[in-house]
Amino acid sequence: MKLSELLNIELPIIQAPMAGAQGHALAVAVSNAGALGSIGCAMLSIEALRSELGAIRTGTRNPFNVNFFCHVPPAHSAQRESAWRAALLPYYSKYGIDPEKIPAGPGRAPFGAEAADVVDEIRPAVVSFHFGLPPKELLARAKRVGAKILSSATTVEEALWLEAHGVDAIVAQGVEAGGHRGMFLSDDLTTQVGTFALLPQVVRAVKIPVIAAGGIADAQGVEAAMALGAAGVQVGTAYLLCPEATISAVHRAALKSQDARHTALTNLFTGRPARGIMNYVMKRLGPMSSVVPAFPLATSAIAPLRAKAEAEGSGDFSPLWSGQNAGGCKEVPAAQLTRELAAGL
Amino acid sequence: MKLSELLNIELPIIQAPMAGAQGHALAVAVSNAGALGSIGCAMLSIEALRSELGAIRTGTRNPFNVNFFCHVPPAHSAQRESAWRAALLPYYSKYGIDPEKIPAGPGRAPFGAEAADVVDEIRPAVVSFHFGLPPKELLARAKRVGAKILSSATTVEEALWLEAHGVDAIVAQGVEAGGHRGMFLSDDLTTQVGTFALLPQVVRAVKIPVIAAGGIADAQGVEAAMALGAAGVQVGTAYLLCPEATISAVHRAALKSQDARHTALTNLFTGRPARGIMNYVMKRLGPMSSVVPAFPLATSAIAPLRAKAEAEGSGDFSPLWSGQNAGGCKEVPAAQLTRELAAGL
Repeated sequence: MKLSELLNIELPIIQAPMAGAQGHALAVAVSNAGALGSIGCAMLSIEALRSELGAIRTGTRNPFNVNFFCHVPPAHSAQRESAWRAALLPYYSKYGIDPEKIPAGPGRAPFGAEAADVVDEIRPAVVSFHFGLPPKELLARAKRVGAKILSSATTVEEALWLEAHGVDAIVAQGVEAGGHRGMFLSDDLTTQVGTFALLPQVVRAVKIPVIAAGGIADAQGVEAAMALGAAGVQVGTAYLLCPEATISAVHRAALKSQDARHTALTNLFTGRPARGIMNYVMKRLGPMSSVVPAFPLATSAIAPLRAKAEAEGSGDFSPLWSGQNAGGCKEVPAAQLTRELAAGL
Repeated sequence: MKLSELLNIELPIIQAPMAGAQGHALAVAVSNAGALGSIGCAMLSIEALRSELGAIRTGTRNPFNVNFFCHVPPAHSAQRESAWRAALLPYYSKYGIDPEKIPAGPGRAPFGAEAADVVDEIRPAVVSFHFGLPPKELLARAKRVGAKILSSATTVEEALWLEAHGVDAIVAQGVEAGGHRGMFLSDDLTTQVGTFALLPQVVRAVKIPVIAAGGIADAQGVEAAMALGAAGVQVGTAYLLCPEATISAVHRAALKSQDARHTALTNLFTGRPARGIMNYVMKRLGPMSSVVPAFPLATSAIAPLRAKAEAEGSGDFSPLWSGQNAGGCKEVPAAQLTRELAAGL
């Protein structure tokens, strides 16, 4: 079945859900342009979730995609938390932050019963997951409202697992992609594969539609992904400079600069590997550190540094999420960018 | 200018030079099929170089490509050598190898004056380099025989450097590619980019033709690379199962197995990062080790382990070079594979 029929959309283009970088406005603009707008909900409280999804429901009559993380929250470890704060101590001193006064906090919540209640109310056409799938009963609830289910695979093994567990289509997330790697069967970064290699192997391995993600930034990229057998594409980074995105000024500036040429997978900001533009803290501590607490517990200790630095106009401690191809970022309305991407279909 | 005109070939497809995995036979077959056959010369003595290039000259009237490494040979460090042998000690014991009796040896030679003499004699249509370019006077000698010059770029910065230093075309080597990374301006692996992201950014940055490499394994891959702006493609891994390739039985078996789904960049076999199928020694020591001597000095200490293991039918200590997409490997003559790839042009 064609992806456009499966998801009831005109254009088989998905705006990647990007928690923290967008709200309802981007999703509405993309869905109204005939593609699939998305919203990343991992950082929203239940109240904010209800309000954001309501705003999308009001803003468009077209299908949209509601995305959730589905990690298992880890137990807090005082030892790991204190090792992580020790690593950050020189920077706390520099910014006059008292490490005793930093509140602990989860940072990202997985899909749970309360979020499922909101999904029941709003009945989105598509629900997508990152880091595998939620527990059976929660997945069943999302399916019961009629939502088509998507999730990300970063290896052939993950694609086969997702197909066996009942997703309707797979997002093959090449290593070029920005933000969090969707990897869930392994935490070994050497398993992560470029889009050019991942996509055709996943297409060959599964029977359901495969959506290409990672490095696709313009019409030529869309055309190339379709040539490799994709049923559609998911594009994130290219939308980040659209006026509907909600990224910070330092993030925007970094995406427009040559700094965007060098990204890395880093676990410093959340505890899980995610791709962002190389910045000061990633250089100083190394982008992948063994002392960070488990996802998402790393977030709280670095948050006050980010806030202080950003207040001075610096992105030294900010997650500057970006894929490896920021070359397609344009300061144009999301509807226009969507139409430009569609020229590659 | 079109790549086929620049290199005087019918099909803008380059068989990737693969030192140690092929000789003249593969180059001859591909060049006779209308694409550009290549030979990787880094592991050939001057006598073998003369003989192999002579065999290609005899075997085809079409252009072919002669490839050289151009690293600066490092000073031998007794300390690093002994740390490396200490790491391998448990395996020496297992195989009954006396570490005192392992001969030191370079393993890979860079392009030098004697090799340039052979190039003078044979006058290949194309000379390509890996790890940047050789010293000016040696590069000038290769140009003087009329050869077009290619080299690999793994970042936009390297592509700009190569263009400024006079290459005729650039091979944009995405991180998916098998064998040695061509990286030469940085040794930071986080700078390495997937083909989907690297190719369009290099195409936009330079004025000379860009050849796509990394993950391209079949006609669909060729079509996708051309859509992203490539002037041609370079394909390596897909040729490794052709009868003209000279890989070992364990290498052949690994490429045909599901093991080929998991490759990694490893410095264990030579001292520089190169992509191969994950095997026993890569898992045990970690694929990237900080104790290996500088390229190419790591080779000699691991060579006897490889020999002993392969004699028992095991690839536990072998470099099983492969890109991330072995899905296109076929046990068909190289001419047939070339024609199949050309369907994507």
